[in-house]
Amino acid sequence: MNEFDLTIRNGRISDANTTYYADIGIKDGKIAIIADRLSAADSDIDATGLWVLPGGIDSHCHVDERSPMGMRVADDFLSATTAALFGGTTTIIPFAVQHRKDHLPTVIADYKALAAQRAVIDYALHLIVTDPNPDTLSSHLPAAIRSGITSFKVFMTYEVLKLTDEQILDILELADAEGALVMIHAENDDMIRWLTRKLLSFGHTSPKFHGVSHDPIAEAEATNRAVSLAALMDVPILIVHVSGIEPLRIIHGAQALGLNILAESCPQYLFLTAEDLDLPGVEGAKYCCSPPPRDPISQKAVWDSLLDGTLQLYSSDHAPYKFDETGKIPRGEQTIFTEMANGLPGIELRMALLFSEGVLTGRMPIERFVALCSTNHARTYGLFPRKGAIAVGSDADLALWDPTVKRVVRAELLHDKAGYTPYEGRTVTGWPTTVISRGRVAVQDNRLLLQPGDGELLACGTPEPVVRQRLNGNPNSVRRKFFT
Amino acid sequence: MNEFDLTIRNGRISDANTTYYADIGIKDGKIAIIADRLSAADSDIDATGLWVLPGGIDSHCHVDERSPMGMRVADDFLSATTAALFGGTTTIIPFAVQHRKDHLPTVIADYKALAAQRAVIDYALHLIVTDPNPDTLSSHLPAAIRSGITSFKVFMTYEVLKLTDEQILDILELADAEGALVMIHAENDDMIRWLTRKLLSFGHTSPKFHGVSHDPIAEAEATNRAVSLAALMDVPILIVHVSGIEPLRIIHGAQALGLNILAESCPQYLFLTAEDLDLPGVEGAKYCCSPPPRDPISQKAVWDSLLDGTLQLYSSDHAPYKFDETGKIPRGEQTIFTEMANGLPGIELRMALLFSEGVLTGRMPIERFVALCSTNHARTYGLFPRKGAIAVGSDADLALWDPTVKRVVRAELLHDKAGYTPYEGRTVTGWPTTVISRGRVAVQDNRLLLQPGDGELLACGTPEPVVRQRLNGNPNSVRRKFFT
Amino acid sequence: MNEFDLTIRNGRISDANTTYYADIGIKDGKIAIIADRLSAADSDIDATGLWVLPGGIDSHCHVDERSPMGMRVADDFLSATTAALFGGTTTIIPFAVQHRKDHLPTVIADYKALAAQRAVIDYALHLIVTDPNPDTLSSHLPAAIRSGITSFKVFMTYEVLKLTDEQILDILELADAEGALVMIHAENDDMIRWLTRKLLSFGHTSPKFHGVSHDPIAEAEATNRAVSLAALMDVPILIVHVSGIEPLRIIHGAQALGLNILAESCPQYLFLTAEDLDLPGVEGAKYCCSPPPRDPISQKAVWDSLLDGTLQLYSSDHAPYKFDETGKIPRGEQTIFTEMANGLPGIELRMALLFSEGVLTGRMPIERFVALCSTNHARTYGLFPRKGAIAVGSDADLALWDPTVKRVVRAELLHDKAGYTPYEGRTVTGWPTTVISRGRVAVQDNRLLLQPGDGELLACGTPEPVVRQRLNGNPNSVRRKFFT
Amino acid sequence: MNEFDLTIRNGRISDANTTYYADIGIKDGKIAIIADRLSAADSDIDATGLWVLPGGIDSHCHVDERSPMGMRVADDFLSATTAALFGGTTTIIPFAVQHRKDHLPTVIADYKALAAQRAVIDYALHLIVTDPNPDTLSSHLPAAIRSGITSFKVFMTYEVLKLTDEQILDILELADAEGALVMIHAENDDMIRWLTRKLLSFGHTSPKFHGVSHDPIAEAEATNRAVSLAALMDVPILIVHVSGIEPLRIIHGAQALGLNILAESCPQYLFLTAEDLDLPGVEGAKYCCSPPPRDPISQKAVWDSLLDGTLQLYSSDHAPYKFDETGKIPRGEQTIFTEMANGLPGIELRMALLFSEGVLTGRMPIERFVALCSTNHARTYGLFPRKGAIAVGSDADLALWDPTVKRVVRAELLHDKAGYTPYEGRTVTGWPTTVISRGRVAVQDNRLLLQPGDGELLACGTPEPVVRQRLNGNPNSVRRKFFT
Repeated sequence: MNEFDLTIRNGRISDANTTYYADIGIKDGKIAIIADRLSAADSDIDATGLWVLPGGIDSHCHVDERSPMGMRVADDFLSATTAALFGGTTTIIPFAVQHRKDHLPTVIADYKALAAQRAVIDYALHLIVTDPNPDTLSSHLPAAIRSGITSFKVFMTYEVLKLTDEQILDILELADAEGALVMIHAENDDMIRWLTRKLLSFGHTSPKFHGVSHDPIAEAEATNRAVSLAALMDVPILIVHVSGIEPLRIIHGAQALGLNILAESCPQYLFLTAEDLDLPGVEGAKYCCSPPPRDPISQKAVWDSLLDGTLQLYSSDHAPYKFDETGKIPRGEQTIFTEMANGLPGIELRMALLFSEGVLTGRMPIERFVALCSTNHARTYGLFPRKGAIAVGSDADLALWDPTVKRVVRAELLHDKAGYTPYEGRTVTGWPTTVISRGRVAVQDNRLLLQPGDGELLACGTPEPVVRQRLNGNPNSVRRKFFT
Repeated sequence: MNEFDLTIRNGRISDANTTYYADIGIKDGKIAIIADRLSAADSDIDATGLWVLPGGIDSHCHVDERSPMGMRVADDFLSATTAALFGGTTTIIPFAVQHRKDHLPTVIADYKALAAQRAVIDYALHLIVTDPNPDTLSSHLPAAIRSGITSFKVFMTYEVLKLTDEQILDILELADAEGALVMIHAENDDMIRWLTRKLLSFGHTSPKFHGVSHDPIAEAEATNRAVSLAALMDVPILIVHVSGIEPLRIIHGAQALGLNILAESCPQYLFLTAEDLDLPGVEGAKYCCSPPPRDPISQKAVWDSLLDGTLQLYSSDHAPYKFDETGKIPRGEQTIFTEMANGLPGIELRMALLFSEGVLTGRMPIERFVALCSTNHARTYGLFPRKGAIAVGSDADLALWDPTVKRVVRAELLHDKAGYTPYEGRTVTGWPTTVISRGRVAVQDNRLLLQPGDGELLACGTPEPVVRQRLNGNPNSVRRKFFT
Repeated sequence: MNEFDLTIRNGRISDANTTYYADIGIKDGKIAIIADRLSAADSDIDATGLWVLPGGIDSHCHVDERSPMGMRVADDFLSATTAALFGGTTTIIPFAVQHRKDHLPTVIADYKALAAQRAVIDYALHLIVTDPNPDTLSSHLPAAIRSGITSFKVFMTYEVLKLTDEQILDILELADAEGALVMIHAENDDMIRWLTRKLLSFGHTSPKFHGVSHDPIAEAEATNRAVSLAALMDVPILIVHVSGIEPLRIIHGAQALGLNILAESCPQYLFLTAEDLDLPGVEGAKYCCSPPPRDPISQKAVWDSLLDGTLQLYSSDHAPYKFDETGKIPRGEQTIFTEMANGLPGIELRMALLFSEGVLTGRMPIERFVALCSTNHARTYGLFPRKGAIAVGSDADLALWDPTVKRVVRAELLHDKAGYTPYEGRTVTGWPTTVISRGRVAVQDNRLLLQPGDGELLACGTPEPVVRQRLNGNPNSVRRKFFT
Repeated sequence: MNEFDLTIRNGRISDANTTYYADIGIKDGKIAIIADRLSAADSDIDATGLWVLPGGIDSHCHVDERSPMGMRVADDFLSATTAALFGGTTTIIPFAVQHRKDHLPTVIADYKALAAQRAVIDYALHLIVTDPNPDTLSSHLPAAIRSGITSFKVFMTYEVLKLTDEQILDILELADAEGALVMIHAENDDMIRWLTRKLLSFGHTSPKFHGVSHDPIAEAEATNRAVSLAALMDVPILIVHVSGIEPLRIIHGAQALGLNILAESCPQYLFLTAEDLDLPGVEGAKYCCSPPPRDPISQKAVWDSLLDGTLQLYSSDHAPYKFDETGKIPRGEQTIFTEMANGLPGIELRMALLFSEGVLTGRMPIERFVALCSTNHARTYGLFPRKGAIAVGSDADLALWDPTVKRVVRAELLHDKAGYTPYEGRTVTGWPTTVISRGRVAVQDNRLLLQPGDGELLACGTPEPVVRQRLNGNPNSVRRKFFT
């Protein structure tokens, strides 16, 4: 018996820095103590054989949101946060979207209302800004930042979302003045439009041509342009959902010159390729997102860049469109690639896929996994060390991973409402069998123990860049080849 | 009252990852607990206003050792460890030197004996290997590694120390097979010799020509050669005491290709330049080391590389030769640059200089300071998380820094025996006023509380590479220049 | 006596490849023979002591043209071709400009008419395309190409001229299909506009802020975008008037990847800097062009790139606006930087400046001078070997340079109508004292011997890329510094 | 009838710069005239349908020379120059080799004597310097340079040939002072020795392991070291026989920094790969040279670098060892890879292979072929424009290529004495059916028309660096793939 609300004992603790064995005592939702040996509280979890990690943070997901093309994602805050939680994620940061002409304070208020009643875990908000008019710039955005929404996403593509370079400069200036971070979807809209026009004129309409129309050069060009805008202003930016080697070269080069260019990637660029879009009929639509999955060389480059620090964030970009007329295939089998909703579900599997293929294969140290899935998100968006840390004073958001569990991925076992998963049938090893949210046991024995509305809105502080790396050696070494 | 031997309360704790406020309880020399609030143990330190950091680790220092030219450094283990301790360092890793023909087990045994009686803080050992004969390779080095000496330094320059590339390949192969790390002093001996010959033929003999003879191209070339040897073998290496931009470009490029090239720099490359060698008479000899301090562009490159992660380690390369006939000026005012002992004292000031000029100026986050001065050394040499961490189970090696103390550097206030300091007269802000070694208060009120022999020999485990970075923005931004 | 119309004897001949002594015999306007010794024709020039070079080709000049802002350049075809001729240039390629809504065939016909009556030397035409509507793309441009106008310039900046990226892709596709070359003015319009807006809001209105508003990042970004568009299409492009190191890095990198990126620079980037714009009052307007002259580092980079082959073309970008209300200072002393006409005169001095500062200083081989000023233009625009060569069958367009003549530059001695020169007062050594156009002596004894209308319109063939380089050694060599 | 000794009429002339149709008149062994139409001399060749090119220059070949291992090459000056001539080469530059302890003036005199009696075409000499003792440096080498031997080769590998870095610095200093060029065989000897030792210890003895032992990293490292030595001294160097992408990256990077690093490659790196060494038994010995042929990526990099100007010279490195006990297989089938003579025959096929696979496929412009095979050699070694040009005053060394001839390569049809060819059975298109040496018809109707001793020793002048490039576009263009 002791003074704590909950004790977690005998676990193997990892944060972004180190791994050790200790017991954790939780009080009032926070980590109150870490000790070599604690007595059990009334509520006690024996974590023998389990890995105790900070709960995941998914800072790129689309919840209860309309797509640029007007389709609505299938998840509301209840289904999205539930799915996240079952996958070991204890904080999400989705987007409140300002469509053009929208009044920003109203957008934010409406979106907060949607979240407040349904979220089971904590959440913060980003904005998507599509209309940086004088009111937005001078008043609404500064107010939003002061209220704890300290990150905005802007688009360089999509007719209905994109900003001009000049508008992005205005946003960057504001972000720097007020202490916010700008996230950029970097693809050259003109190139995509030109290629799309040409492809259609040649009769190329199937899903694989979505990938062709989003050529890597379009992504690399826009990435370089975004970097140039940031360099002109001397302001950090975050390039989201980087898909492959061409934009990574730009980002790596910019970082090497000392520019604060952060970058994120997602499961689809690690576990899918362009071939997945090239299936009979419209089946490939299930794998359609922007930028699209690339070739194996790019896949390897994303893996390497997650390890070497060029990429700091690993998010889901969860965008759960159904494979029916409401999302992926508005005209059924007649749907052409320009009509498919862009985006994939992934909020529940994000960490399990990487844990299985990265950590348990020995490719990625567990500390790097924690950084990419949790700690770096907390830092980047101003939630650290409240979130993303196992340290005295931090929120007790913890995931207890059992590294021996094997699961076969089936859409019907997942908790989002997309109705399909691009990873159907894969086997993953390792799963977060117990998850704790602010000191409350939230998932155990595969049951949800929280209620809608239990999640709280987090006010984000000033963003902070962070990078960390580990390298790979020489795979062509003559010695490795002939002498071992 | 509680069960702990010592409590440190009300401090601001930083490790390589994060900063938070908590109390620490120590038992049996280890950190037993970290909690938001502890009651005081019998022995209790009120750390209000102080920064509680892991004790420093100085992994590059020369203690009780002869120079390649036969001079003897001024410090034995008592003076060296005392100086280290007063500067906030709680672990050192000096070199046992195998001169050619030396029997390695004897070298190690002799050196351990020197240390055992005099060290006041814990220490591990590296080897310097100059004679990789069959006995050394097949038997003595493997035995040394198994006994916990898991790092070797090899030289590419100095007639009496240098190995051929072929010998280095043998060492790298062995290190990989047995789990050790090779440290490399990378300068092209032939270039230095050629330049020296030419300089002397032109009558250029003053200390500044030491710097000229060690041209940056010589360092860059050897660095590339070392990287090539490592790439051929697919083995990590550590390039020690990197002095400037030319070798940093090589190292950065190699890391960008995924090679495990670690690198270290030292205070002399941050705080001195080539101009310091260009003083009247032989005064410049006080600043003579190899590689030598470079120009301000290189100085800035070293600062940037400590921040961006190209450099992972910040050591002293403490080599305390006296400014008299026993070291720096064997022939007094007649001494020419080839006769001066190479090396500078710095074991006590290493961290205070960086804390003052890096951390307190806002240039370097405190977490990066901890990584560079302590945590990364522990990882790199297989001492983590026993050393270099503030975590449950780690050794209670702690330095309590008062960020408000100002000190003017005076050689007579330092505890090494070099008799001079290259940093004489500088003011530093911040000092580790209390230092704790394995749970024992070791320095307090400017007094040494430990005895010779209190330090223990540490057995190092398998080395582990580590990198971490933070970037610098665009110093030429038009916006920064005209609009702010 | 012999069969030739004109002989040039005893001269030192250089082309882009080699230098030798020989006599030249000309018949019917063409080089009929090159021989070690010819007898004199009726018309004979003794070129003893002179350098016989191919006549210059200036492929970037604005003649009888309105600026984007509506000002008219001061030169018509008579004054422009006369000035060119006196400076050793025997072919010019100015621009027929399609303003938006203009009917391209009419634009071409009108411009040809202006040229036909007044040109004293041969000329070809480029187009500036600002309105790539379906008629232009499908019919008018193909017809223009077939008629011998095989190069188009497009703008990425200037509100009234610029094309979208998508329009540039259409132009590139067409150019490739029909065998034409696209020239690109690469500056990011949005960045310039944003900076201009900000500068004006801070009250920064003087000429120097023209330079600030055209930040090098704007040029580098647009250069990278142009390269990306070309790479997407796999089509060569030519980046015109490259001003400094930032775009040169992009171009060099693209060439290193094997992309056919050609590039041009101009006298203003070799002989002027940003400081020239920073004069009292509106005097700096005389040095205002886009992109603007940069700093000395960029100036050196342009010199190096002309030598090493990154730049293949050296043109004048002659744009002769008067320093009065019709051009540079529409509102006199009240003129602010956004109101000044952009462009400098330079058609007559282009080659003399480079000959004096490049060739006679030993910095540039004469063969490289010929390539940059003449041969590469002929190749690039499909006029080789008719123009730009001293070879049997080539047009006898020759300039006989006296390397001993010294001239002080005075605007009143020049033959264009700008009324001022940015190079006023400089001394140049070397001048083309005799110039021959298609076998006719065109300038001799400082007199013009041709009539308006003597110049012919040249039909250009398919463009051809060309590169050539020479390197610079190590300016920081320790040996050069201490041992010589 | 006219005054000339020989006329060549109706041909298509190409030099390194341009292509045109003209007639050539030759007198006293030199080109006296180039004219649009000449009357026939007594001796007249109708070159209708033929390409008239400068005779080739092979500046890297081993004639009448012992190998480092003591084997003797099979060709003397008669067979080597005859083979060269039949292949369109009219000048060779073989090596006089100073073995250690050799007296340099004697070496040169002896070698000149061997050449004088047997050479059928002109030749100049390089030296191989293995013993830069004081006499060599202060007296013999300067004398050799003054006599017209202005290039030296030094080795970084081969026990009996290699120099230390310090010795190379002495050679570079001398070369710069006296106006000579240093050629460097760049491979890291220690790496090769270590790998060889290991390979043998694993029982890997077949010819393919020659290639493995000469790892590309060994070549890249030594190339970087050579570049560093050159940079330290600020002296140009020539890296000979570059085999692949790793050293090319070093060379390209050095050139990009402005260093005068010249580089050469050879047919074996364009037309052979490592697989050719991997044949049953000792058959692979026929393809053994150092550095060895690499993989297809390197093969492509060499092609690209010949086109883009990174490589300026294309030589044979002709080293004709017989496939018997005197050369390739001293112990017959028992021969292991360390015992095989290093080197391949190629003097006769060098140009025909490149003409067929480069020029006639459209991959390489004929002007670039001329530059790589002839003009650049003349420039690099101080023979231009006497050799390597079709210009008035140049030696009348010409090859008339028939681009329609097809030949199947058979060793018995070649004129060297190696007895085999690595290119056996390949079909080449295009052959120099008539070759002219200093105005004399030397080969016609497949017959040799010159006598031993007809060739003259050429005195070389000061070397001159030269580079020229052409680029390759974007092979991955989406447009090329889907829209054409």
